Amino acid sequence: MARLLVYYHAKFLSYFRRAWEWCFLVSSLAPGAAARFLDELKAIVGEEYVYYHPEDLLVYEYDGSIDRGLPGAVVLPISTDEVRRVMALCYREGVPVVGRGSGTGLSGGAIAPPGGVQISFSRMDRILEVDTENRTATVEPGVINLDLDNHVHKFGYRYAPDPSSQKACSLGGNIAENSGGPHCLAYGCTTNHVLGMEVVLEDGSVVNLGGTARETPGYDLRGVFTGSEGTFGIATCITVRLLPLPEAVKTFMGVFPDVDSACTAVSAVIGHGIVPAALEMIDALSIRAVQNVMDLGYPEDAGAVLLIELEGLQEEVEEIGIEVEAALWESGPTLVRTAEEASDRERLWAGRKGALGALGSLAPNYYLVDGVAPRTKLTEVLREVAAISERYSIPIANVFHAGDGNLHPCLLFDERQPGALETIIEAGAEVMKVCIDAGGALTGEHGVGLEKKELMPLVYTDEDMDAMRRVRDSFAPHNRLNPGKIFPDGTHYHPPARRPEPGLSI
Amino acid sequence: MARLLVYYHAKFLSYFRRAWEWCFLVSSLAPGAAARFLDELKAIVGEEYVYYHPEDLLVYEYDGSIDRGLPGAVVLPISTDEVRRVMALCYREGVPVVGRGSGTGLSGGAIAPPGGVQISFSRMDRILEVDTENRTATVEPGVINLDLDNHVHKFGYRYAPDPSSQKACSLGGNIAENSGGPHCLAYGCTTNHVLGMEVVLEDGSVVNLGGTARETPGYDLRGVFTGSEGTFGIATCITVRLLPLPEAVKTFMGVFPDVDSACTAVSAVIGHGIVPAALEMIDALSIRAVQNVMDLGYPEDAGAVLLIELEGLQEEVEEIGIEVEAALWESGPTLVRTAEEASDRERLWAGRKGALGALGSLAPNYYLVDGVAPRTKLTEVLREVAAISERYSIPIANVFHAGDGNLHPCLLFDERQPGALETIIEAGAEVMKVCIDAGGALTGEHGVGLEKKELMPLVYTDEDMDAMRRVRDSFAPHNRLNPGKIFPDGTHYHPPARRPEPGLSI
Repeated sequence: MARLLVYYHAKFLSYFRRAWEWCFLVSSLAPGAAARFLDELKAIVGEEYVYYHPEDLLVYEYDGSIDRGLPGAVVLPISTDEVRRVMALCYREGVPVVGRGSGTGLSGGAIAPPGGVQISFSRMDRILEVDTENRTATVEPGVINLDLDNHVHKFGYRYAPDPSSQKACSLGGNIAENSGGPHCLAYGCTTNHVLGMEVVLEDGSVVNLGGTARETPGYDLRGVFTGSEGTFGIATCITVRLLPLPEAVKTFMGVFPDVDSACTAVSAVIGHGIVPAALEMIDALSIRAVQNVMDLGYPEDAGAVLLIELEGLQEEVEEIGIEVEAALWESGPTLVRTAEEASDRERLWAGRKGALGALGSLAPNYYLVDGVAPRTKLTEVLREVAAISERYSIPIANVFHAGDGNLHPCLLFDERQPGALETIIEAGAEVMKVCIDAGGALTGEHGVGLEKKELMPLVYTDEDMDAMRRVRDSFAPHNRLNPGKIFPDGTHYHPPARRPEPGLSI
Repeated sequence: MARLLVYYHAKFLSYFRRAWEWCFLVSSLAPGAAARFLDELKAIVGEEYVYYHPEDLLVYEYDGSIDRGLPGAVVLPISTDEVRRVMALCYREGVPVVGRGSGTGLSGGAIAPPGGVQISFSRMDRILEVDTENRTATVEPGVINLDLDNHVHKFGYRYAPDPSSQKACSLGGNIAENSGGPHCLAYGCTTNHVLGMEVVLEDGSVVNLGGTARETPGYDLRGVFTGSEGTFGIATCITVRLLPLPEAVKTFMGVFPDVDSACTAVSAVIGHGIVPAALEMIDALSIRAVQNVMDLGYPEDAGAVLLIELEGLQEEVEEIGIEVEAALWESGPTLVRTAEEASDRERLWAGRKGALGALGSLAPNYYLVDGVAPRTKLTEVLREVAAISERYSIPIANVFHAGDGNLHPCLLFDERQPGALETIIEAGAEVMKVCIDAGGALTGEHGVGLEKKELMPLVYTDEDMDAMRRVRDSFAPHNRLNPGKIFPDGTHYHPPARRPEPGLSI
């Protein structure tokens, strides 16, 4: 208790100090310029949609990662034209800019660059058009992923990419990070679903990438924009493709005594030539967390649970379902059960999708490592993750997309413990190296952002990264859009000591 | 007969003149530089793999389009290292470079830029690795599309993109043009199947784009490279994903009295929520051409034939097959028949895939317009195409991917007729405008190349094209890779009068 008090006292002092410094920066260091700049922002979006008082800015300091950064100001435009004018103003004044959807990102992608303006899309949240004949929807970037999906259900369609944060995350943010989700095993990440975008560039000019068709003449800039984490431009209008809802859906839960046997079952399913719509693993620690906060009927003594979902025609789901059950039984489960009713399936998925939030019942903080391992090496990689957990005495919960080898080891810690964060980051880097050494990738669906920028040299040569930087420069030659992300530059944004100073860089 | 003699005499004189000019350029205008350059090329790839005598170069003047351009020299490297050294040499000497696979392209993408070196990949044709566990294949760019597909069949896999030229076209060329094919309706064009590439840039440096996984950290440069028509770099090693072979395949042929009723059937099939693996249309003129050269049992009095292919599990194919048949019968066909036996299906497809070649039985030349129309406007657009055919008195054969609205009107002509080519190009541009006005696209799968560069402003603003050019400049800042393609510059490569002069630009 005493430690908590000390912690909160220190935290309060730190905020107070930063607020003071911020006011100092805005009002004293460059009083005229910053004030004039804020006035110009207000003239564009309206006075009530420019935030610059420290207490208003604090909620914009976070995303879902461990990094922090206070923006210099936050603006909430309502239209492409307002975004364009805000960006032209920032360009003229040399102020860096970052877009922000719902702040659910897990790699620090939307954390404000020092002294920067954050453009929040919470007011640009309209579904502009659903074209069922051509199976497309056109939306503003602030539309919530699940809202779009629910909206198109009534026409018999769905928007396939379904991040676990789909209740809260925005489509603009999904595009910035090329977000995935359980059903991306069958349907691919966001990049496979974006047909066209209206994009505002660094200097405020507006370009259109793609259109409403799958193929476009000339260079296809949609794929490279998707996942560029706001460093190329900011999408203000987005056309995505819709998929028809499946005739039948069936979910299987396989309960296993340990992670090893669950991994064997993953290989068995895929080895049968089956690509399910989703294939997820939840380990013992994650099950405990889930059962702590909601009773979903997950067996508490299980070593690991697999969730497998099939979609398609009724006959197809039935026939493949028999094979899935057979494959699961081959690997020594203690239980296999199926869920066909929507309510039953939703209960199973509520556990998977709520697992990250539930980890809060085990520890105040988690650090999620978004590594990818070749599916064929899942068992070895998870064993090494367990060894790292033991070596560092850090509990690691695994809840992840097993079907495509996209791990999400969550390193549990308490950031109030001195040195805890540093240890976690070190252990996380080891987990990442295990993935890379096994022939995997740095990120499956969360982006590089701040979190993994220093690890990029593990997979890319200087020449490879130079090729990427040159492409960025062709969109944003002055590097004012979300600078400091993706590429290694030796800076850190972890709290509290090393986070950058607040204030507008003007 | 006399006209033919006059034609060939003129053609011979023209070649002779160009050969003479070429020798003049190489040996007289810059004798030392060109000779030294050729010697350096020979030192890299070996003397027998550098072609520069006019008679050796003539076969490299063509692709499948109407454009022509004689390269200054052709080299046939055997390895990435040789490609790298050839490109570094050309970079140093300021000589433009273009890659060439099999020369089956339909938009002039591989036509040599004036004075340029053409790098032919006919010797780099090895399948390096098939990884069945991770479902990937790694190949050299000269591997023929169908050779890869046949090779992986024995492991139970396929390479899905299947251009009609798949017996001859190379994977490097497929990537350059982002090629499609009948089965891309279900599986997407080439860009959806490329996982990683080793690429040589303008200055001879080598970078790796992507890898062996579906998602990659940082910018995803694979999509923008695929379809960049050799203007960004030259891929020397390619990793593609493989798909499992389907359990069952069934092909339906619907015979219709006219194109209108066939279009109605297309809408009916898609309207039933069915996305077949392929949905192709062949009109009366194309049927006549096919039947002229091979008897495949296509009904000669039909107004249009639809080919529909279903793939999947046996039950799925059976069940959806019933719906397809019902949808076809709704639209007034004269016949619907199914083919389940491989030999029977192959006969039906031989007609579709051989249709372009068979057009030679109707006219010496065709000009294929690769426009895309929204599927919902297929009937109107095809009616307007018929009106253009009548207005210009040009026979137009339609054989195309109806399922995704990717038209291929083939304007038949005889290039020996004075003025015929000019008329054809004018009529082709009208066809393209009809597609664009209906809300379609300039190209479905053949690329922009030389053929459609002047039409790009129909779909893109100057700002949009500037954004594209800047991306190109980030890969190839000196614009020495396949210059003169994609973007409008007012130049033409149509024979004979306006094609550029031959010789090395050194």
